[in-house]
Amino acid sequence: MAGDDDQAVKLLGNKLSPYSYRVEWSLKLKGVDYEFIKEDVFNKSERLLHHNPVLKKLPVLIHNGKSLPESMIIVEYIDETWKHQPRLLPQDPYERAMARFWAKFVDEKCVPSIISVFSSVGEDQEEALKDAKENLKTLEKALKGKFFGGEAMGFVDIAAGWLPYWIGVTEEILNLKLVDQESQPLLSVWFEEIVQVQIVKDCLPSRDELLAHLKSFRERTVAAKN
Amino acid sequence: MAGDDDQAVKLLGNKLSPYSYRVEWSLKLKGVDYEFIKEDVFNKSERLLHHNPVLKKLPVLIHNGKSLPESMIIVEYIDETWKHQPRLLPQDPYERAMARFWAKFVDEKCVPSIISVFSSVGEDQEEALKDAKENLKTLEKALKGKFFGGEAMGFVDIAAGWLPYWIGVTEEILNLKLVDQESQPLLSVWFEEIVQVQIVKDCLPSRDELLAHLKSFRERTVAAKN
Repeated sequence: MAGDDDQAVKLLGNKLSPYSYRVEWSLKLKGVDYEFIKEDVFNKSERLLHHNPVLKKLPVLIHNGKSLPESMIIVEYIDETWKHQPRLLPQDPYERAMARFWAKFVDEKCVPSIISVFSSVGEDQEEALKDAKENLKTLEKALKGKFFGGEAMGFVDIAAGWLPYWIGVTEEILNLKLVDQESQPLLSVWFEEIVQVQIVKDCLPSRDELLAHLKSFRERTVAAKN
Repeated sequence: MAGDDDQAVKLLGNKLSPYSYRVEWSLKLKGVDYEFIKEDVFNKSERLLHHNPVLKKLPVLIHNGKSLPESMIIVEYIDETWKHQPRLLPQDPYERAMARFWAKFVDEKCVPSIISVFSSVGEDQEEALKDAKENLKTLEKALKGKFFGGEAMGFVDIAAGWLPYWIGVTEEILNLKLVDQESQPLLSVWFEEIVQVQIVKDCLPSRDELLAHLKSFRERTVAAKN
């Protein structure tokens, strides 16, 4: 990748933006060299606005002089551009479709329900917790062995891989359990496995850094609601 | 397709569920025979719950004895299963990614903002209208000629193709304009073009039927808010 600047791969991201990890993991799995350009999640740079004028959000992949937003769309782009093994999506059309389905389920059901738990208190939080635990129980059905991708990390592992670390810190701050051995036995095992994968570990922020970030997020959202 | 029941293509849908059209249009573009099984959008059948236990929503494609939910995921499945022309997604990885990006923009930005206009009144509605018009203006940037797919209907046309007909009825009920020649000149032309495509027309409900459906939806949502 080195040399020709146009072909260089650049990632606008931040270690406290979990969707950035998805792109980093995909590039690392494919063995693609990339430059990580740290963006401030609170103060949007001119560079970010230039490369993602519609959504103005992280992450953005820059490749061949073109910019691409939306983490899971970038992951598919990476799999279609660097077609060598490991393939991130299954090759069978139905299995591919179901991987896309579960990744969408993570983003549209699991994540919003976890955010609801995190930004509520009292009875609202109890209700949100029930919903979030149920979604995480449903997600468990998509596991195909050690990983969602079977014996190796795949598309759904990339989509959901940030949850164990972030949920761990969330549970500590809120003093409750979103995932446990009894409620989601299979997901609990995956939670332990995925954070042991070297490339997953390599992209995560320190626990202290994440704790400070999420505590501040919790304070702001609860204050805004009350 | 006829004969072997397992290979038969069935679509659980409803003419008043716009996401069903996406699947019908894709199957018609590919020339795939299918059986349309009308589901009641208000009273969910045992069949629907069996085939889409997670989301419990329309549409669902049944093929080779397997069930697949989520309209745009089904559209990709159709393109990957019946690989002959016309290809619904572009073949270039970046163009494919951008088609996915704009389809997601339709679902996550345009549609929610149009629903906000439709379910609000007074100042809230004015605010929502501004937002929806801006999103539809942004969507205009994705047009690549006559269609979003260029000279022929493509992935984004399939995603957004129900909007012109539905927005027309919405504008009549609310007595306002979401799309007009002055604000979105290119999109206005596409609005006129897409509803002239025979396979698009063939799947739409009668105007009276849609008017009655949307009027009732409007009454229920406004009542629920006030």
